Amino acid sequence: MAETVELLAAADRLLAGRRAESLDALAAFLAIPSVSALSEHRADVRRAAEFVARRLRECGLEGVALLETGGHPCVYAEWLHAPGRPTALVYGHYDVQPADPVALWTSPPFAATVRGGRLYARGAADDKGQVWMHLLAAEALLRAGNGRLPLNLKFIIEGEEEIGSLHLPPLVERERERLAADVVVISDSAFHAPGQPAIAHGLRGLAGMEVSVRGPARDLHSGEYGGSVQNPAHALAQLLAGLHTPDGRVAVPGFYDDVLPPTAEERSAVAALPFDEAEFRRETGVPEAFGEPGYTAAERCRIRPTLEINGLWGGFQGEGSKTIIPAEAHAKITCRLVPDQDPRRVLEAVRADLVRRRPPGVRLDVRLGGGSRASLAPADSPYMRAAARALERVFGRAPVFTRMGGSIGIVPAFEAVLGAPVVLMGFSLPDDRIHAPDESLDLGNYDHGQRAIAAYWLELGAMAPSGPAAPA
Amino acid sequence: MAETVELLAAADRLLAGRRAESLDALAAFLAIPSVSALSEHRADVRRAAEFVARRLRECGLEGVALLETGGHPCVYAEWLHAPGRPTALVYGHYDVQPADPVALWTSPPFAATVRGGRLYARGAADDKGQVWMHLLAAEALLRAGNGRLPLNLKFIIEGEEEIGSLHLPPLVERERERLAADVVVISDSAFHAPGQPAIAHGLRGLAGMEVSVRGPARDLHSGEYGGSVQNPAHALAQLLAGLHTPDGRVAVPGFYDDVLPPTAEERSAVAALPFDEAEFRRETGVPEAFGEPGYTAAERCRIRPTLEINGLWGGFQGEGSKTIIPAEAHAKITCRLVPDQDPRRVLEAVRADLVRRRPPGVRLDVRLGGGSRASLAPADSPYMRAAARALERVFGRAPVFTRMGGSIGIVPAFEAVLGAPVVLMGFSLPDDRIHAPDESLDLGNYDHGQRAIAAYWLELGAMAPSGPAAPA
Repeated sequence: MAETVELLAAADRLLAGRRAESLDALAAFLAIPSVSALSEHRADVRRAAEFVARRLRECGLEGVALLETGGHPCVYAEWLHAPGRPTALVYGHYDVQPADPVALWTSPPFAATVRGGRLYARGAADDKGQVWMHLLAAEALLRAGNGRLPLNLKFIIEGEEEIGSLHLPPLVERERERLAADVVVISDSAFHAPGQPAIAHGLRGLAGMEVSVRGPARDLHSGEYGGSVQNPAHALAQLLAGLHTPDGRVAVPGFYDDVLPPTAEERSAVAALPFDEAEFRRETGVPEAFGEPGYTAAERCRIRPTLEINGLWGGFQGEGSKTIIPAEAHAKITCRLVPDQDPRRVLEAVRADLVRRRPPGVRLDVRLGGGSRASLAPADSPYMRAAARALERVFGRAPVFTRMGGSIGIVPAFEAVLGAPVVLMGFSLPDDRIHAPDESLDLGNYDHGQRAIAAYWLELGAMAPSGPAAPA
Repeated sequence: MAETVELLAAADRLLAGRRAESLDALAAFLAIPSVSALSEHRADVRRAAEFVARRLRECGLEGVALLETGGHPCVYAEWLHAPGRPTALVYGHYDVQPADPVALWTSPPFAATVRGGRLYARGAADDKGQVWMHLLAAEALLRAGNGRLPLNLKFIIEGEEEIGSLHLPPLVERERERLAADVVVISDSAFHAPGQPAIAHGLRGLAGMEVSVRGPARDLHSGEYGGSVQNPAHALAQLLAGLHTPDGRVAVPGFYDDVLPPTAEERSAVAALPFDEAEFRRETGVPEAFGEPGYTAAERCRIRPTLEINGLWGGFQGEGSKTIIPAEAHAKITCRLVPDQDPRRVLEAVRADLVRRRPPGVRLDVRLGGGSRASLAPADSPYMRAAARALERVFGRAPVFTRMGGSIGIVPAFEAVLGAPVVLMGFSLPDDRIHAPDESLDLGNYDHGQRAIAAYWLELGAMAPSGPAAPA
């Protein structure tokens, strides 16, 4: 225990001593527009992977490699010289969401800027900044331990998280030996509130689609043709409106079929978390909370499934007016899923509903995207409890265990293929604006988070390895 | 009569002799992107006005002036040396619709290109090309008549037709003496079919608005917040879907209140026009015609009012996916009106309906635009009959009298303020794609139309002036 305290203090000094330098390096990482969704950024995405790989080598990690996936590559690294100790696999992602609408950013999305104790950039919180914290913690602990870590450590940092981790599950299958671990640790989630750490033991799943409604072969003059053809924008509006009841339930037949109703215990766990509707309104800017009847706002965005339009468009969007009937109209839709919904089955149900309700006079094209199932793990496993101790030591407050509303596509595959529990220990804050303009990372959480990660490795190092995948 | 035949033949020879040169000059006119809806083109719009003014002077017209309106200027010109003869006022517009989506044009919208007997450019048919035909006809007739016209002629060519002619009605009021005429002639409409001329004696009115739905202050992460706030894109879809019944009637309470039901005579006049549904599907590309029950497709787009979404947008529209709840969503809407609907009253009815149906959790902003009433004139006035004779002489076929689905905002003001009948004698074709990519003008109609206009002036010159506004 004394050794642990000393190692942690030494690591902390090393982190503090190199803080300016490592923040500059993070800024260089954030400057790479590794937007996985946009093909024009394909080279940037690879450049970000190479940047991570180089840095992992510099940190003292071994076996560093880009694992090709058919899409964007994964970065792998390891340090496996602690026989008899547990093995942790750190997962994160170096790809980011698109930055648009770029005009709404206070400073450019790919020029990291510090303002008011926060680091602003696309990816600062989701997830480059948190990946960086892991790299720095590992480096500091290796130096503090004279080239030794208290546990075996592996990294798998992917480049397709923001587009559904399509190529990762087959890679995890293929590389199950190389990735074998006792526990998977992910920092891609948030505190419950400033000063209140959280460990997520549940995630929602995700399933997406794009809907296109096509009518005339070209935009028609609304005077010449108005009234005699179905307007694709009207038809799309009808289709989208019918996906919900007016009071906020998803109206798609079968949508809720496989949803496990939350237990009384889960509902009281959610109710126990601080939730202030006035603060919620202030933070989001909405005039009032709204959603599925019979559930609280906190429940709706954690333990209930949803269907959201992420974008819609068609016809003339410019200044002034253009009196046309648009040739086509489109919408992007994603569903957040809970246990035991199956992404494919949910998408098929939505498609069937749209096809059944297609208005006359238009053609309908529904393209189904990828999906991931929800995940839900016991909150009281030894790995969860060790993470809780590490967080409490550094932040002075025990974490709350939550179910997260977001999705990390690969978690169910880690659980199923590696047989390892997943600990979601994230350091972003609820108002970090991930996926939105002015994404940022709180620099207090950035600094303390590195130390909490190091503390977790020390906690794990003190445990006996338990999994079937302990290193030889 | 012999003199008329000779004058027309002489004018025709002059037109033919200068055809290449005058087509080049039209191309230069079309090259000016005089998009009245876009403020970035303000200078271009004025440049187009000056271009028209210069050409009117070259044609031998007098009193040429730019009449300032507070918006884009009007071009005025006159030739008033035929005492005892009628006065015709030619109205047209030199502004054009926006060219987007530019990517769908086969050749650039502002680089006029001849292909397959058609002239392709934004404004080729609507309305620069048709304005040009009037200028060329006046010039040829003046030369053929040794500097004399058989009637008094005035021109008023405006620059705001595509944005609702907002500043023109007060200008017509202000300049009622200068604009006084026995008949107003407008070439901004189409043949009924290739080879079948048409005179429109009715026009639909127009009324527009923009609807904005706003929820959160910024785009929200659909995992973190999905389910707990109203999605503005959903709310917009609900609002838009509710504007129609599923079978295609406008569902807004009061929308049809002031509509004069079409008479049996009007319905049989529409039914008498050739209309082929298979041809309609081929021309528009729609899988089937669709619209208000109880009316034919031809009736729906001529003698019935409509409400159309011209464009809608919100959230992420790019490649791939972005899992957000958009902060806002928008739609542009225009209604086509028939007698006796009042634009303001219709817009207020739509706004009231939207406000009444606003879904919870979002703010609604409805901005009402301008509007114009429908117009309907007797088809058997002497000026209409003279136009019919001129068209039949040149095109070898008597025109049909139709009610047009489109709108020309200023027509009701001409009728009311000048007390002059309006003759809509247009030369575009139904498939000219006005307001759409690849707008074009049939060069056969372009050539013959100039001659038909000259023939009309000769017809009018043989008539006694009838109006209260005969020149002194």
